[in-house]
Amino acid sequence: MIEELTRLFSKLPSAGRRSARRFVLHLLQNKEDLMIPLAEKLLETANNIKFCSTCGNFDTVNPCKICSNSRRNNDIICVVENVGDLWAIERSSVYKGVYHVLGGNLSVLEGKTPEDINIPKLIERAKTAQEIILATNATVEGQTTAHYIMEQLAHCDVKITRLAQGIPIGAELDYIDDGTLGTAFNSRRDV
Amino acid sequence: MIEELTRLFSKLPSAGRRSARRFVLHLLQNKEDLMIPLAEKLLETANNIKFCSTCGNFDTVNPCKICSNSRRNNDIICVVENVGDLWAIERSSVYKGVYHVLGGNLSVLEGKTPEDINIPKLIERAKTAQEIILATNATVEGQTTAHYIMEQLAHCDVKITRLAQGIPIGAELDYIDDGTLGTAFNSRRDV
Repeated sequence: MIEELTRLFSKLPSAGRRSARRFVLHLLQNKEDLMIPLAEKLLETANNIKFCSTCGNFDTVNPCKICSNSRRNNDIICVVENVGDLWAIERSSVYKGVYHVLGGNLSVLEGKTPEDINIPKLIERAKTAQEIILATNATVEGQTTAHYIMEQLAHCDVKITRLAQGIPIGAELDYIDDGTLGTAFNSRRDV
Repeated sequence: MIEELTRLFSKLPSAGRRSARRFVLHLLQNKEDLMIPLAEKLLETANNIKFCSTCGNFDTVNPCKICSNSRRNNDIICVVENVGDLWAIERSSVYKGVYHVLGGNLSVLEGKTPEDINIPKLIERAKTAQEIILATNATVEGQTTAHYIMEQLAHCDVKITRLAQGIPIGAELDYIDDGTLGTAFNSRRDV
């Protein structure tokens, strides 16, 4: 039973057998304060969580709290690869529009098609939007996906923007990769 | 609900907020194959796991499968700090005796007394044993605890041994700390 629990924990991202065993041991030693609450919260969440049929976010309600929030601008749609990216943007509190979660990116290796990552729905939504912000990851797959979306939206009457690329706040130039440094030079701005 | 689940996951050892969020996201994306099985296995384990009243191991039965295994030598007791150490020794398959789990070590900082770490029970068990193997960690606290146990058992008619200290298999001398190297020199053996 402990072995089976360890096996399940080791399926979590970047948790190997060793971490999984430490998790299980810690849980066994904190049965009442942590193990049972965690089990119950997992079941409760699993039973109550829904996909937002508008944007693809996870929430307890459908449409999600972001899509149904009247103080958010429904005319601006930020396209992200997954819900983790949406959470990251929400934590920064800079964005007051809505989202579109692709749930992946166009990948030849994984055989993902535009239909798999919810692009037809995005094109549908873009028809009534003012701006589409492409916030896919700055990886080859993310940029390929952004490029494909741009092409698909070319005939729509919608403004398409991308997140700025450049040097992260607090970074030392010495530690920045050449690609980022090159982009930062080419996109330099007047001050 | 997702926030609360993340908070619980971040209490696991060496899992910060970031890992916890990745765990939760991965679980939400794998609800049927991973999230629900994990929740159910956690509850099942929490409801069925017991402390072995003899050795302090976790198991579904009391006494545990090690203490009740007739093929194991009940006259040799290996003293470990916690169940994780017991699991580590079991994985190595070298030991065929039984265990005594202290559940911690003598710590002035944490204010742990001999009673807190199950030492009176060990002294009781030592009366009928042939050998006590001290397998506490090679840390200051572990060694202090081993030393205290040795003193307490001095009047008992029982052989007391400790795990050998020296150079780990596969290690390069250059990377070994001075203390280990010193111990390995002082404990050198004829070949």
